[in-house]
Amino acid sequence: MAKVYAFLADGSEEVECLAAVDVLRRAGIDTKLVSIKEGKEISGSHGVRITCDETIGEADLSDADVLFLPGGMPGTIHLSECGKLMEAVKAQNAAGKRLAAICAAPSIFGMLGLLEGKKATCFPGFEDKLSGAEYTRTGVVTDGNITTARGLGYALDLGLELTGLLISREKAAELKAQIQYDQF
Amino acid sequence: MAKVYAFLADGSEEVECLAAVDVLRRAGIDTKLVSIKEGKEISGSHGVRITCDETIGEADLSDADVLFLPGGMPGTIHLSECGKLMEAVKAQNAAGKRLAAICAAPSIFGMLGLLEGKKATCFPGFEDKLSGAEYTRTGVVTDGNITTARGLGYALDLGLELTGLLISREKAAELKAQIQYDQF
Repeated sequence: MAKVYAFLADGSEEVECLAAVDVLRRAGIDTKLVSIKEGKEISGSHGVRITCDETIGEADLSDADVLFLPGGMPGTIHLSECGKLMEAVKAQNAAGKRLAAICAAPSIFGMLGLLEGKKATCFPGFEDKLSGAEYTRTGVVTDGNITTARGLGYALDLGLELTGLLISREKAAELKAQIQYDQF
Repeated sequence: MAKVYAFLADGSEEVECLAAVDVLRRAGIDTKLVSIKEGKEISGSHGVRITCDETIGEADLSDADVLFLPGGMPGTIHLSECGKLMEAVKAQNAAGKRLAAICAAPSIFGMLGLLEGKKATCFPGFEDKLSGAEYTRTGVVTDGNITTARGLGYALDLGLELTGLLISREKAAELKAQIQYDQF
């Protein structure tokens, strides 16, 4: 079974994270919420208190199929300042394994130099932080091992995109119908 | 300032609740998460642990502009079995004030006889529980004081609909753009 780790800090956009996680869990993908704090509880950028499954201090990320970084401020800054997370992201990329980020968080991949020559998207205003990337204004884009999404309005789409990559396009389509996501 | 209370039980669909709440809080609407348990922490239908702002035992709901019920199972059943919540929903309706529900939860309004002659929507399979309603297959519908939505894929839309009703259509359009929700 595929394994996804989603990281949360104080000030992370709760629904950017949880909407994608919700879709992944519906798909049967083992998806863990990981606090980058010493404790498991974080308070999101809209004041929702979430108790994560584990802290990054206790997490073994070596079996990750995807490391997923939600946006929100100041959550994105806190994620970027977490040494263990940054080391894990670099190691994941070096192993050719998948990374995903949404909203402001693709800027972290840019900061680490992981987007060189790759198509990527992000929340408007963060384009110049996607160092070396070919910026696309699309809602979600996957180039090689890196998937990025533009903002909260594309969080379900990001979950569906990762489901498509980890399981199948058919499973993603089935879930899209199940959650009644049929505006477009 | 408008005031919304969103209710959560063990087994409530976390993101159906939080996506709407996120939009409402972005709109500046005072939105409280209320646990119907004795304690503030609930575990959602996809295993996310959320600490609510208050419990229904300590909440004063008399200033509510909207009472909002998310779906998910068995969360919807737990909500329907909460006496204080059912009394509050009936009193809110009797006062001509707003109610909202998504997915399976519109069935609670049906059970209470509040949908007689009103247009309403719900998760497919719950139509026959919308007693007396004119079932619409639309994603979101407001008829008089009652707003209903079809499922998780329409949770952001529900937040935007309530923003339109409580503030203005212009504010809702502004937020829809801010969250990058532009697939359609």
